[in-house]
Amino acid sequence: MISKKMEGLVKNSSVIRAMFEEGKQMAQKYGAENVFDFSLGNPSAEPPKEVREAMVSILMEENPLVVHGYMNNSGYEDVRAAVADSLNKRFETAFTEKNILMTVGAAGGLNVILKTLLDPGDEVIVFAPYFGEYNNYISNFDGKAVVISPNTVDFQPNLREFAGKISEKTKAVIVNTPNNPTGVVYSEKMIMAMAEIMYKAQDAFGTSIYLISDEPYRELAYDGVFVPYLTKYYENTIVAYSYSKSLSLPGERIGYLVMPDELEDFEDIAAAANVANRILGFVNAPSLLQRTVGRCALVPAEAEVYNRNRELLYGELTRMGYEMVKPEGAFYLFIKALEEDDRAFCQRAKKYNLLVVPGSSFACPGYVRLAYCVDYTMIKRALPAFEKLAAEYQA
Amino acid sequence: MISKKMEGLVKNSSVIRAMFEEGKQMAQKYGAENVFDFSLGNPSAEPPKEVREAMVSILMEENPLVVHGYMNNSGYEDVRAAVADSLNKRFETAFTEKNILMTVGAAGGLNVILKTLLDPGDEVIVFAPYFGEYNNYISNFDGKAVVISPNTVDFQPNLREFAGKISEKTKAVIVNTPNNPTGVVYSEKMIMAMAEIMYKAQDAFGTSIYLISDEPYRELAYDGVFVPYLTKYYENTIVAYSYSKSLSLPGERIGYLVMPDELEDFEDIAAAANVANRILGFVNAPSLLQRTVGRCALVPAEAEVYNRNRELLYGELTRMGYEMVKPEGAFYLFIKALEEDDRAFCQRAKKYNLLVVPGSSFACPGYVRLAYCVDYTMIKRALPAFEKLAAEYQA
Repeated sequence: MISKKMEGLVKNSSVIRAMFEEGKQMAQKYGAENVFDFSLGNPSAEPPKEVREAMVSILMEENPLVVHGYMNNSGYEDVRAAVADSLNKRFETAFTEKNILMTVGAAGGLNVILKTLLDPGDEVIVFAPYFGEYNNYISNFDGKAVVISPNTVDFQPNLREFAGKISEKTKAVIVNTPNNPTGVVYSEKMIMAMAEIMYKAQDAFGTSIYLISDEPYRELAYDGVFVPYLTKYYENTIVAYSYSKSLSLPGERIGYLVMPDELEDFEDIAAAANVANRILGFVNAPSLLQRTVGRCALVPAEAEVYNRNRELLYGELTRMGYEMVKPEGAFYLFIKALEEDDRAFCQRAKKYNLLVVPGSSFACPGYVRLAYCVDYTMIKRALPAFEKLAAEYQA
Repeated sequence: MISKKMEGLVKNSSVIRAMFEEGKQMAQKYGAENVFDFSLGNPSAEPPKEVREAMVSILMEENPLVVHGYMNNSGYEDVRAAVADSLNKRFETAFTEKNILMTVGAAGGLNVILKTLLDPGDEVIVFAPYFGEYNNYISNFDGKAVVISPNTVDFQPNLREFAGKISEKTKAVIVNTPNNPTGVVYSEKMIMAMAEIMYKAQDAFGTSIYLISDEPYRELAYDGVFVPYLTKYYENTIVAYSYSKSLSLPGERIGYLVMPDELEDFEDIAAAANVANRILGFVNAPSLLQRTVGRCALVPAEAEVYNRNRELLYGELTRMGYEMVKPEGAFYLFIKALEEDDRAFCQRAKKYNLLVVPGSSFACPGYVRLAYCVDYTMIKRALPAFEKLAAEYQA
């Protein structure tokens, strides 16, 4: 007697999560060292030591009624100010605590802002390949996802198609850079062109179109690549951030929304997002974690660990003949499957205890995603399996 | 350009939360010791010392990649088993980890189960007075709240009206005992009569009707009153629990759902709730807090602190002529306003720096709620203000 909507959702539930569970079962069966699980974006780097130090010191020194109590639904004022400052220092922005709403991770933040913005039937544009959960978040509020097809040459967004599909029904556009699943970083030129299309559309339709920048991977960028801060290119930009990857805290569910003063209807949006955070059942972001990230807002991410993995895996897979764009950020490789059917390819990979996720889950069939936020030695152990898998197709 | 639904929600947003913010402002203006804020259910007792000990020891001893990492969306298996055991020990139930889903507080749990169950237009019965947020949670999934009017004699549910309003459209019934805002505990006799009505309705309509027991106040019960465990009286019962009050962790957002094996369609419901937890953006309950409550599942609540407040406030207010039912649980007093318009009464109370919440916010006009989870000395300091307020009406 579950709801009709949930029936469909359970049936088509997350392939990634199913693999994560399967990986654990396989590890029990074959031994953890013989299973090569590249399925889930679960950081392999421990949280920086500052995180534990901050937590213990907060627990020992701060008033427990404050540390564990209710606060404004948007979060502690001092934490929001610390987050704003940390952004201003790094990106030459001018945010204050008013612009920050602490959230239950980026997933919580995306739900809050979509609840705030969407009326039933409103369209939200997404660029394939994209994180499949966006479909669910948009559907939670009866919005309609409009998918821009993938550009498999360099995995930058297909702006021609974007310009054609943006319409008077478009309420929001979600971008994710550095990107899951490709690892590609959208260039500044690309962002400027995208902003121009959106400004033109706002003028043409007399509507407000919000750019939602989902950026849990912001700090995971390699080779000194420039990752533009999107609020500086388009006024109606809202940022959804998570500390899941940068501080290796995915289970803790801590992140924030940035809602700049420049937003059209800023006051209404900030007030509504505060209410949405409460009534969706989050109430507020977990309090000890808020206080922790307040203290750690400028602690750098352990990007070098993932960079090392990236170099090894990209180099070796390329040598074996796999095709991919070299990622500049995040901790994913998006490789071309060795047969047309990416799901069949993933099944075949399992024969070698290799767990990878079909591109179909990201609206980009024919490819598969490898999460390389894993132990370096596991990558080394997995290389023969990738080699055998490739050999199957050469036979 | 916020959504139409949110426009209405912002306008009619939480009176309680507005007061919480107003109380902080008044404290700045008049000095904290001169403001008597009885508005919010924010525990005044510190978390039991076992909580901090558990947190520090988890941070020092357990693997940080496990403590802060992703786990099954339903929560860590060992934590869920510990929670199940703690229930079995206290209530002679027979739950296992399969029956437990860790949630972002009870608010998160209620949203998860309503998402799981409700199709648009499905009715959910609530008994006035009730926590106003239920309206929002039900509306999140396009359900319809059907309100049973209050029985102001003893604030037990009005079963005659319940029997008349339960229908083929009823998908769920929410009860909250010990009750917010009255502090009343529903008697075993009452629960049995309620279950009988629900069983009959299921038979008559050929439907499944789920009883959702929202019980964050379970451990806050006084004078040895018996608080029935509802899964034992009605098979289709789901429990939403929070550690906010029992362990004084409201800001941490940690609780759980109990979904017993006896539920009709148990497997489907448990699977769908797992998916709902993910796609609503919770993903999972905060991980360190999960591990903490797993260790503290049998730590008793500091009920005696609140009992002392209850005795003082009930005794003194009764002496002054205020009318109320003596609460047996939770940390609220629900007193009759001294004029018909409870909102006007609350405004008048503010003249004496007394912050109390109008019963209208709980669908029970003519009454006001006092949250006595406050410092004992504040209650003492507030008594002259209550006296002056009463005197205004006697003049």
